[in-house]
Amino acid sequence: MNEVTQLLKSHRSDRSYLDKPIDDAVLDDIIETAWRAPTSVNSQQVSLVVVRDAATRARIAEIAGGQAWIAQAPVFITFVLDMHKSQMAIEAEGKQQIAHQSLESLISGSTDIGIALATVMTAARSHGLGVVPIGGIRREPQAMIELLNLPELTFPVAGVVLGYVDQPAEQKPRMSLAGFRHETRYDSTMLPEVIRAYNEVLVTHWKNTGRTDGDNWGNNTASYYQHIYFPQVLPAIVKQGFGIDK
Amino acid sequence: MNEVTQLLKSHRSDRSYLDKPIDDAVLDDIIETAWRAPTSVNSQQVSLVVVRDAATRARIAEIAGGQAWIAQAPVFITFVLDMHKSQMAIEAEGKQQIAHQSLESLISGSTDIGIALATVMTAARSHGLGVVPIGGIRREPQAMIELLNLPELTFPVAGVVLGYVDQPAEQKPRMSLAGFRHETRYDSTMLPEVIRAYNEVLVTHWKNTGRTDGDNWGNNTASYYQHIYFPQVLPAIVKQGFGIDK
Repeated sequence: MNEVTQLLKSHRSDRSYLDKPIDDAVLDDIIETAWRAPTSVNSQQVSLVVVRDAATRARIAEIAGGQAWIAQAPVFITFVLDMHKSQMAIEAEGKQQIAHQSLESLISGSTDIGIALATVMTAARSHGLGVVPIGGIRREPQAMIELLNLPELTFPVAGVVLGYVDQPAEQKPRMSLAGFRHETRYDSTMLPEVIRAYNEVLVTHWKNTGRTDGDNWGNNTASYYQHIYFPQVLPAIVKQGFGIDK
Repeated sequence: MNEVTQLLKSHRSDRSYLDKPIDDAVLDDIIETAWRAPTSVNSQQVSLVVVRDAATRARIAEIAGGQAWIAQAPVFITFVLDMHKSQMAIEAEGKQQIAHQSLESLISGSTDIGIALATVMTAARSHGLGVVPIGGIRREPQAMIELLNLPELTFPVAGVVLGYVDQPAEQKPRMSLAGFRHETRYDSTMLPEVIRAYNEVLVTHWKNTGRTDGDNWGNNTASYYQHIYFPQVLPAIVKQGFGIDK
């Protein structure tokens, strides 16, 4: 273990922030790390929209389903899957972009979004900031598209809250490594026992952190995954010009 | 800038490796960083398959379209989008998982894959290793699924090569920050000039690094995006039990 892996292993999502701004130089440094992160075929299919304006952050907090920390912390960054740039560049050469009509592009683009998002989280935490990644902007993607003035062939995949932490969160326990790491081939034989043990660990964690409504992992995950989660994603993506059936 | 952001900004993809193994303790440390990375709604929808076996790496190199560095470097990790674990846990509570029938799940899952992948890359580079992220396993996803014995509701989204570098690569220049970072709202007015300037920068980079076939960014990106890229992704994902039309 070194200082970097120690920082990475200490990841937690913080949801309580001080009213303290982030210096421009620190924010610039953080954003430049994501700018240097790799993208599939050097497509550079990621763009960031940095929001410091309080009214815009308050609106994003609403869109994300009432996540107060988005309004509370000084900076929110939206990670935009962006095939608008490549389309402009390809058209400038008299050619036509087709790849955005395929499911592959959404998978490749979302992966690159995740790479940029993790890079920003690591950089921010190295500067002593707290972070929380936000998928909740996909609850109402069309509202985000309008708020951020996003052009065709772009989509707001995820966001991140950055700020100085007030009340630090507890790190949430994970399922044991046996349910995460496989050698050479995937082996599902131990999963029932891994899941059973994790259910108990998570219930104990909720009790220890004072949450009385905490359920086990199966029930907690079911509360989201028993339904089509964020059903507005599909229509908003299609409206932005992406295809999914190729 | 601090040591962590300096490491992140120095990211490059290396494609030339020494025949030198990675110590188990180092590999364990790297993998545990990804294990601690966040996932949407604590779904833990990421699993890793670690391949050190030379024959399996050689086969993956073929699947990815003849990427010799996959066979050359000692470790290849596949990042698997995994809703098999949550389905087992939800069914164990007598409930039914539905979310995997939606496009949202593929976007959320691919984002989490990207987070885990970036975390591994940062951790590996902090240990002095070289890395190259590999999307090319999606060229023949069904072959990867069979090779790694992946169960239903899993999908091999991306991979990474880890090893000690022989001939270091040059860092590839990016489009200027003006094409990456927006303030409060997306502003596309400067993109034509940003792209024009980047076309020149990239051609100069190819010349300086001795590549005689290097094209500008528009033409280089067109060589991939003029077509449906990786057309086998859609049928393989559907075969694994995921839905895309909700």
